Amino acid sequence: MSIDRTETRWNGWGWTEHLDTLSHTTAVWHWMASELGMSALLATPAIPLGEIELPPSRLASAALNALAEVVGESWVKTGKFERAAHARGKSYHDLLHLRAGDLETVPDAVVYPGNPLECLDVVKRCAERGLAVVPTGGGSSVVGGVTAECLPEQRGVIVLDTTRMMRVLTIDEVALTAVVEAGIYGPDLEEQLGEKGYTLGHYPQSFQFSTLGGWIAARGAGQQSNKYGKAESWLVATKLATPRGFWTTECFPASAAGPNLNDIVLGSEGALGVITEATIKIQKKPETKDYRGYMFNSFEQGLDAVRTIIQAKLPVAMVRLSDENETHFYRAFSDAQKGQSFGRTIKKKIEAMVLKSKGIGETPCVMIIGIEGSASQITATRAATAAIAKKCGGKSIGKGVGDSWYEGRFHGPYARDPMLDHGLGADTLETSTRWSNIKHLQEAVTEALEQAMRENVPYDGAHGIVMGHVSHSYADGASLYFTFVFPRDLEREVQQWHAIKKAATEAIVEHGGTISHHHGVGTDHAPWMVEEKGVIGVSILKAIKQEMDADNIMNPGKLIS
Amino acid sequence: MSIDRTETRWNGWGWTEHLDTLSHTTAVWHWMASELGMSALLATPAIPLGEIELPPSRLASAALNALAEVVGESWVKTGKFERAAHARGKSYHDLLHLRAGDLETVPDAVVYPGNPLECLDVVKRCAERGLAVVPTGGGSSVVGGVTAECLPEQRGVIVLDTTRMMRVLTIDEVALTAVVEAGIYGPDLEEQLGEKGYTLGHYPQSFQFSTLGGWIAARGAGQQSNKYGKAESWLVATKLATPRGFWTTECFPASAAGPNLNDIVLGSEGALGVITEATIKIQKKPETKDYRGYMFNSFEQGLDAVRTIIQAKLPVAMVRLSDENETHFYRAFSDAQKGQSFGRTIKKKIEAMVLKSKGIGETPCVMIIGIEGSASQITATRAATAAIAKKCGGKSIGKGVGDSWYEGRFHGPYARDPMLDHGLGADTLETSTRWSNIKHLQEAVTEALEQAMRENVPYDGAHGIVMGHVSHSYADGASLYFTFVFPRDLEREVQQWHAIKKAATEAIVEHGGTISHHHGVGTDHAPWMVEEKGVIGVSILKAIKQEMDADNIMNPGKLIS
Repeated sequence: MSIDRTETRWNGWGWTEHLDTLSHTTAVWHWMASELGMSALLATPAIPLGEIELPPSRLASAALNALAEVVGESWVKTGKFERAAHARGKSYHDLLHLRAGDLETVPDAVVYPGNPLECLDVVKRCAERGLAVVPTGGGSSVVGGVTAECLPEQRGVIVLDTTRMMRVLTIDEVALTAVVEAGIYGPDLEEQLGEKGYTLGHYPQSFQFSTLGGWIAARGAGQQSNKYGKAESWLVATKLATPRGFWTTECFPASAAGPNLNDIVLGSEGALGVITEATIKIQKKPETKDYRGYMFNSFEQGLDAVRTIIQAKLPVAMVRLSDENETHFYRAFSDAQKGQSFGRTIKKKIEAMVLKSKGIGETPCVMIIGIEGSASQITATRAATAAIAKKCGGKSIGKGVGDSWYEGRFHGPYARDPMLDHGLGADTLETSTRWSNIKHLQEAVTEALEQAMRENVPYDGAHGIVMGHVSHSYADGASLYFTFVFPRDLEREVQQWHAIKKAATEAIVEHGGTISHHHGVGTDHAPWMVEEKGVIGVSILKAIKQEMDADNIMNPGKLIS
Repeated sequence: MSIDRTETRWNGWGWTEHLDTLSHTTAVWHWMASELGMSALLATPAIPLGEIELPPSRLASAALNALAEVVGESWVKTGKFERAAHARGKSYHDLLHLRAGDLETVPDAVVYPGNPLECLDVVKRCAERGLAVVPTGGGSSVVGGVTAECLPEQRGVIVLDTTRMMRVLTIDEVALTAVVEAGIYGPDLEEQLGEKGYTLGHYPQSFQFSTLGGWIAARGAGQQSNKYGKAESWLVATKLATPRGFWTTECFPASAAGPNLNDIVLGSEGALGVITEATIKIQKKPETKDYRGYMFNSFEQGLDAVRTIIQAKLPVAMVRLSDENETHFYRAFSDAQKGQSFGRTIKKKIEAMVLKSKGIGETPCVMIIGIEGSASQITATRAATAAIAKKCGGKSIGKGVGDSWYEGRFHGPYARDPMLDHGLGADTLETSTRWSNIKHLQEAVTEALEQAMRENVPYDGAHGIVMGHVSHSYADGASLYFTFVFPRDLEREVQQWHAIKKAATEAIVEHGGTISHHHGVGTDHAPWMVEEKGVIGVSILKAIKQEMDADNIMNPGKLIS
């Protein structure tokens, strides 16, 4: 693997050495406390790994030897850091457990196969020994998709880490497809494709720390999904190591030979087998990129613009529309980081006056349009999108906001750790719905989150913040992404999170949204799968699971529990 | 239903009253005989229905009453014509049986439910009585997808005809979706959508005689799939009446909540339940259309042009490229219809000289590009596609060939009946593969068909004709469609067909094609499903079938037999 996990945070996001400008900017924390209705924030540092005791590995030396026979002794890891780093994914809920030193749920070993055959052999040996297998790539799931847990009747759990399998095997420059090992991290994939002038273009926020196999297993989406497609758009075929042997799915541009079973692998979350290889569609690397902003008077106006752009089939790479709250908080946060008080400085007052003169009120919404391609394509698409934005009441605010978003497009998750250090909870969730329902759903989820946070904060008068945006759009609808921040109730922080999560998910289900647009199901959304798929739908998924993994050793408890 | 089946051919294609210009054009038959290496053609008329005896219906009056209780007495039909017209689909293989008066395989009754609840009740009552249910829309399957057969242990078979369910229920003009009853025929769907300015744009060759539910069940494609998408692109959600009750699939623009189960309905061919309703994506009706032709020196040159156009993401509605054989035979056939001898008239000689002067040799390939949209979109796309065609060696041959193709785009199947009357067999099959394999696959299948026909013709020196074209294309590959004509061996015509079909399908499987791009599986392709999906893939489909229809009453013997 190209990432040395010891250089990353086992209980947080990203590189250990990542420069954290936030923690030392006192003004931000004062501002944040006041936004949350609190007088001050608490210091709530995580418990260091050195102070935590892990349960002993349940694997006897016979089992460890059996695994070492397959992958080599050095690739069966039972050290404290390895086990802790593979205990869970990167959700807020995961971090609560990890930071509290709760490592009850932890793998008995971490195994790194070097190729598909080794994956298959590891799965078979685990099946023989009654061990659960949690397949993982970068381990960045935010829905409990890689929690290292087994069923009570199982004798232990290993995490099968795929990240040694990191090669682009072949590139078909005529069909524009590539066969790639599934454990490859985003940057390595783009580098290897880029050497020949190609790109997959799948850039989720987790890009630097997530893998191709994970993107497929989670049915994920990259930030530029309008141009490059969600996983189901670019996946052509897969190879999986399953308890029943290798499963290679059909590999055709299109077919009518019954259901396309690649669609069952997409979103399978390791429950059917380990994705070891994938055939993916690639594209020529874009010559250039253009990201720029527009300001709207309201979320509705902005939604009209996004919808019109997408339904006109304009070849944009991304259209991202923040709601009033998100626009406000991003601007205020940025000011607070600079030590300014939003709306108070003379510069800000002038800015507000200029916007007002353009007809933009005090609670505007920012839209960023990203276009990638040749210079002439960008010129044409920029003109067409600008015309639509204008027609819908939008005002151009230039390239600055676009460049700034692009620059920081992977940085979001780094902000969560210092927040957790300051007594704050921060989580995200997302959904999608049809255009005719999107404003209604955005309001319903925002309200549910606000109310649940109010009801679950530990201090009188304190409350949470909810921000929303549209970031993936389709002819018939779009995704909604919510970020919410709240004061942690240290006495019951898991229950607090769960109460908020439950309220939001119930609002999503009740008001016509999917329980996840691109994060997946994992353990967090599994309780709502019947609402999502219906009784028959879930029974079909269970029948597939039973057929592929009768002993339920593959990632038990995820997807359909 | 809007089509009175008594006005259509129970043992052939389309309207009984359709004007058959072909039969009376003697020159065509002389020409065709010579092309097939025959001295003359035989008269081989079909046996009229009046001379055929049908097996008696196995349904006792109790069963018939039970069905009549649901749908009303007049919608349970056991008359000779109804049973014969619903005995099979419209494949060459089907017609061989029907024309020979072989109605051993025939439904015991045809039932027309008026709504989803009636569908469900019919399915349940059939389940209780051990009757097989063959769901059908227009019944135009060409792969044995609607053959009215049951298992030996079952007590009979009914055809459940959905064509009374023919309403567009709602149109969402914001999300550009419509909820439509599944039994609606193509023309009715387009008329009802068209009244509000919308279109689905799904125009298979069977358009006039096939239904929305059939398109979904078969995972079909319309001729303009580049713009409007194959069924899997425009389907949002479905409702099915199944032996387990109603199954309503998830209805979101995109989701990561596990596999999207709509992908299991697409291509399910009635084996899981009756599709009663569907939510579909609609588009604004195009302002105008432009279909025009280009001529290439070789199929390879044309393939380069198609691929370049598609990979450049140009918004074409259709690109259709005939291979050398198809181009030759279409031109010759057109001449023969006019009583001309291809290549002999002065006009033809001049035409050939002009093409030669443009660098086009004697075995050219015709490409038709269809563009649909606003006048300005058409102008821009026409310029871009023309430039690519030119760069790949193509010469513009104007709008005539495009208009003529468009005019006759649904007429192809009508030509088969008179051929069958003249001792000729005519069938089609289709596949898809990646661009880097398409020329190889086209050659392999052509060779396999030619050889199989040579080995299976009844006369020394006689042989078959194979024509091929590309009609659906994707970034990573395209479909290949083959039409083949041969002298029937009247002594063993089903075996003859089967030998040819087997040879072609084996060539497809061996050389990297799918067993069907848009016709489906039915009974004809079912024997190759293991080659297509693998042992594990087929076992997953069987597990789903078992979960949904444990008694195997839904369209038994199709898809996975």
